[in-house]
Amino acid sequence: MDKAKLQREWLKSNFNLLNNIETDQKQKLPQPPLQKFVEEDAEIIVLPEVNKDVITKMNIFDCLMDRKSNRIYTEESLSLEELSFLLWSTQGVKKVVGKVNFATFRTVPSGGARHPFETYLVINRVEGLRKGVYRYLSLDHKLVFMFDKNNMEEEVKEAVSGQNFIASSAVIFVWSCIPYRSEWRYDISAHKTILQDSGHLCQNLYLACEAISCGTCAIGDYNQDIIDKFLMLDGKDEFVIYAAPVGKVKTE
Amino acid sequence: MDKAKLQREWLKSNFNLLNNIETDQKQKLPQPPLQKFVEEDAEIIVLPEVNKDVITKMNIFDCLMDRKSNRIYTEESLSLEELSFLLWSTQGVKKVVGKVNFATFRTVPSGGARHPFETYLVINRVEGLRKGVYRYLSLDHKLVFMFDKNNMEEEVKEAVSGQNFIASSAVIFVWSCIPYRSEWRYDISAHKTILQDSGHLCQNLYLACEAISCGTCAIGDYNQDIIDKFLMLDGKDEFVIYAAPVGKVKTE
Repeated sequence: MDKAKLQREWLKSNFNLLNNIETDQKQKLPQPPLQKFVEEDAEIIVLPEVNKDVITKMNIFDCLMDRKSNRIYTEESLSLEELSFLLWSTQGVKKVVGKVNFATFRTVPSGGARHPFETYLVINRVEGLRKGVYRYLSLDHKLVFMFDKNNMEEEVKEAVSGQNFIASSAVIFVWSCIPYRSEWRYDISAHKTILQDSGHLCQNLYLACEAISCGTCAIGDYNQDIIDKFLMLDGKDEFVIYAAPVGKVKTE
Repeated sequence: MDKAKLQREWLKSNFNLLNNIETDQKQKLPQPPLQKFVEEDAEIIVLPEVNKDVITKMNIFDCLMDRKSNRIYTEESLSLEELSFLLWSTQGVKKVVGKVNFATFRTVPSGGARHPFETYLVINRVEGLRKGVYRYLSLDHKLVFMFDKNNMEEEVKEAVSGQNFIASSAVIFVWSCIPYRSEWRYDISAHKTILQDSGHLCQNLYLACEAISCGTCAIGDYNQDIIDKFLMLDGKDEFVIYAAPVGKVKTE
């Protein structure tokens, strides 16, 4: 417990440190891109436009009231419209602002509007999409297909410390973090904010799932190295920060 | 930036460390209380029961779509019913479970259902409540009055690094963290989870505000020492982790 008590300092606000730091932004270093690069020959999937028709539980009060962590999913698939709604709810871009430097306004807030995340999807059962790993292009509301593997389910199980219910979901949301997007502006004060921002988007996933008869469960306990390698992230400039499986659930 | 890069390790999953740690829970040490102690002669305010009538924007889709950070508030007061809804949305307890050890299920998830937060309110304009600082008793859905001060507005301004719009809000939500509630179970793996959990509740405040024609803006940049002292927290076993002012906003 003594070590733990020392680590409590992580939880505190330290923006005052920035008074003495020439952040990269202050030094006028170029801003990192808002979204990760996409190769020209990549396979792109255009997502259906987000609309209210997928919502079965409309009232926000009921979504808040009924929210819970769901670890049991039916065999049902998600529709592409439902997936589109969940992606937009968690990272959807509503507006890009700026002239020299740019920022995005989204369905979730992020410290300094930095939004240092990428969304990866391990897709098992979504209508119209073959199994495999995809990345969400939030600026374009599209998906890019990354790869498929025969033993995907086994690798995922290993990556999430044997929590088997995760592999039985229709789709697993895995959020990576590209810390420099926030560090460019906030340097060593970026990290607390990044973690809080990852909580914002996960909460929206919970409520959006509730709205469309789906369930989810936030996953903090995963094997960092295995999951980073699985998604081909370097573990330094980009690595996984949060994950959540999603599936249809039985409604009363 | 070099220091910042080292700190990136904070953002990673480290639950594997628990394999080699006898956490306080494993050692069968007593669980910390779910809620901070209330003195017997404290002034208690019973909050109105939470209900849907306060909601002006019902559809969760619209709440997600319209969510934004609001820094301009009208002079209007919040009703006690509206405050009750916001408190329930962010930390409301739906169920207490357990026999020897206990856990709460709330409108937001928390790693291991630990919920290591207390909610403090700096109240400026809420119908039926005099100005002052209050604490939310989530288990009872009540408030306890803490204190009032003549120069409250000035102290708050100092605590939030001169972001003057905050002091003009109707009520400021200030969440503290009692890290041991999570450390008891997760020891040195608790801290990432605690920060993510604080993001969950803040996101719900955003959406709940949107639902009742209010606005909010998450505050990460505050003076840790000043705000802790203001709320009479020791800064070690309990300290502020996040804050958000709330006020009525002009609707189109």
